[in-house]
Amino acid sequence: MAPTEQLRRRQRQDYPYVLEYRTRWADNDMYDHMNNSVYNFLFDSVINTYLMEHCGLLPPTSAQHPLMAHTHCDYFSAISFPKVAELGLRVNKLGKSSVTYEVGLFEKGVEGIKAVGEFVHVFVDRATLRPNGDGMNNQLRSGLEKLAVHKTTSKL
Amino acid sequence: MAPTEQLRRRQRQDYPYVLEYRTRWADNDMYDHMNNSVYNFLFDSVINTYLMEHCGLLPPTSAQHPLMAHTHCDYFSAISFPKVAELGLRVNKLGKSSVTYEVGLFEKGVEGIKAVGEFVHVFVDRATLRPNGDGMNNQLRSGLEKLAVHKTTSKL
Amino acid sequence: MAPTEQLRRRQRQDYPYVLEYRTRWADNDMYDHMNNSVYNFLFDSVINTYLMEHCGLLPPTSAQHPLMAHTHCDYFSAISFPKVAELGLRVNKLGKSSVTYEVGLFEKGVEGIKAVGEFVHVFVDRATLRPNGDGMNNQLRSGLEKLAVHKTTSKL
Amino acid sequence: MAPTEQLRRRQRQDYPYVLEYRTRWADNDMYDHMNNSVYNFLFDSVINTYLMEHCGLLPPTSAQHPLMAHTHCDYFSAISFPKVAELGLRVNKLGKSSVTYEVGLFEKGVEGIKAVGEFVHVFVDRATLRPNGDGMNNQLRSGLEKLAVHKTTSKL
Repeated sequence: MAPTEQLRRRQRQDYPYVLEYRTRWADNDMYDHMNNSVYNFLFDSVINTYLMEHCGLLPPTSAQHPLMAHTHCDYFSAISFPKVAELGLRVNKLGKSSVTYEVGLFEKGVEGIKAVGEFVHVFVDRATLRPNGDGMNNQLRSGLEKLAVHKTTSKL
Repeated sequence: MAPTEQLRRRQRQDYPYVLEYRTRWADNDMYDHMNNSVYNFLFDSVINTYLMEHCGLLPPTSAQHPLMAHTHCDYFSAISFPKVAELGLRVNKLGKSSVTYEVGLFEKGVEGIKAVGEFVHVFVDRATLRPNGDGMNNQLRSGLEKLAVHKTTSKL
Repeated sequence: MAPTEQLRRRQRQDYPYVLEYRTRWADNDMYDHMNNSVYNFLFDSVINTYLMEHCGLLPPTSAQHPLMAHTHCDYFSAISFPKVAELGLRVNKLGKSSVTYEVGLFEKGVEGIKAVGEFVHVFVDRATLRPNGDGMNNQLRSGLEKLAVHKTTSKL
Repeated sequence: MAPTEQLRRRQRQDYPYVLEYRTRWADNDMYDHMNNSVYNFLFDSVINTYLMEHCGLLPPTSAQHPLMAHTHCDYFSAISFPKVAELGLRVNKLGKSSVTYEVGLFEKGVEGIKAVGEFVHVFVDRATLRPNGDGMNNQLRSGLEKLAVHKTTSKL
């Protein structure tokens, strides 16, 4: 992943796919800002919306589906209910069976980025819950390639 | 509350305040639709957004704030991620210290109503966590009156 | 359902099935107590644990599964993280295809009840998402009968 | 953090503080296992329980409280409702104002570890939301030192 100082300067245009999510009352914890765990709910949501609407994923019955292998997130600044979040999505690395997404969280109407996370999905066969020898199917790959900011790919 | 058959025929125009909420991946449970508990999160969110943006509520430091005394909900039809929900809000009864909200959940682009709930808030003093003898303050009352569909008020 | 004043006097021994649930940090909202929506998560959890461990339910693949038709809850007193909740379950009404549960929430080590809810499940066939003419299967019925406090049954 | 292969071999005795958390029905997502975001709720919960019960933290009114700066998690194996999770906590690094926790998730009655995460808290003054020059207070430090597995400390 990019160094933290570089991530702090991310802007909306660094992400080719952006969705708005209205925050919910119970997203705020006792410190009056959105709880760190809720960021993961939103990251997961923008990723799965893209997979379902642009890559042919039909959970839970698709022959291949993603399992989360790794997540991380750096939190730079808080957002609080009832503000509206904007979630930006890009693909940092596209492997044979795995994909590394980067997700940025912004607040609608506010300039800087609030948090940046990376999530690693491994696509497995529904029957075995393991990757197959051929990797992810073509519909997944071509959908994800549209969000790939670096054109290099890994072999994983 | 109105009879169930009447609630099933509710339309968006029966609610003077409507907000859109994008569903989240984890809102769906193992039956592939939004879990019943999540409806309450959304109902709570549209209510509190209205209180903060139109009635002067500033949680958690306002001198008066609401406590939930009662909730109920009838579920008519399901909604699933990644659909967008529309939440409509009205006030069915406005008492001295309490308010009965009705909230309707619709799916964006779909005609009929999915669920209707009633939530009862009691406004308490922050210091005592009890209602005071004068009831809710004027800013709360005048904001809530704008959503009152029946002009009768209770004495509670 | 029983009158509210009667519900306020419910005790642990009024519920034949009780499970402990540790509260979570993010269960608390900005008023420093467990958010009302979270009660529904816990009610749903004790009900489904009983269905899976004592009534043969195997979601999501069972031939019959429950849909939530109605929920309501009266909140008498608050509970806050990191306290441990005790959830008591009983069956108030057992119909042909439907069941009305009553769930009580207590705080471990504290005497009085905090909240009481009723939840109505309708058992539907997985293929049609509708009740069948024969009602719920025998394994469900005999499991639920063990929690029925009134031996009268409805025809619904 | 330790290499992934080393983390996969973590055992309960590698964590000096362990709490049980019963999973909830809605923790499972459409793939019939606990959603990745829910791990963070549990990690956050075991950390804050320790801070409140062993380090004198009294949210939200304590003069100092933690803000989350970074989280990451590696997922090795799934857990599903209604299983019971065991959360183990240790301190990998204790700085002047920050602490790096390691949290391991096990399933009750099952040998291997399911997931390992690291969370970084920065303790800030409630008034300024920034760390002060003296770092965390003594009650926090002495409580956290009891969980420190490596006796080296950082200067951050």
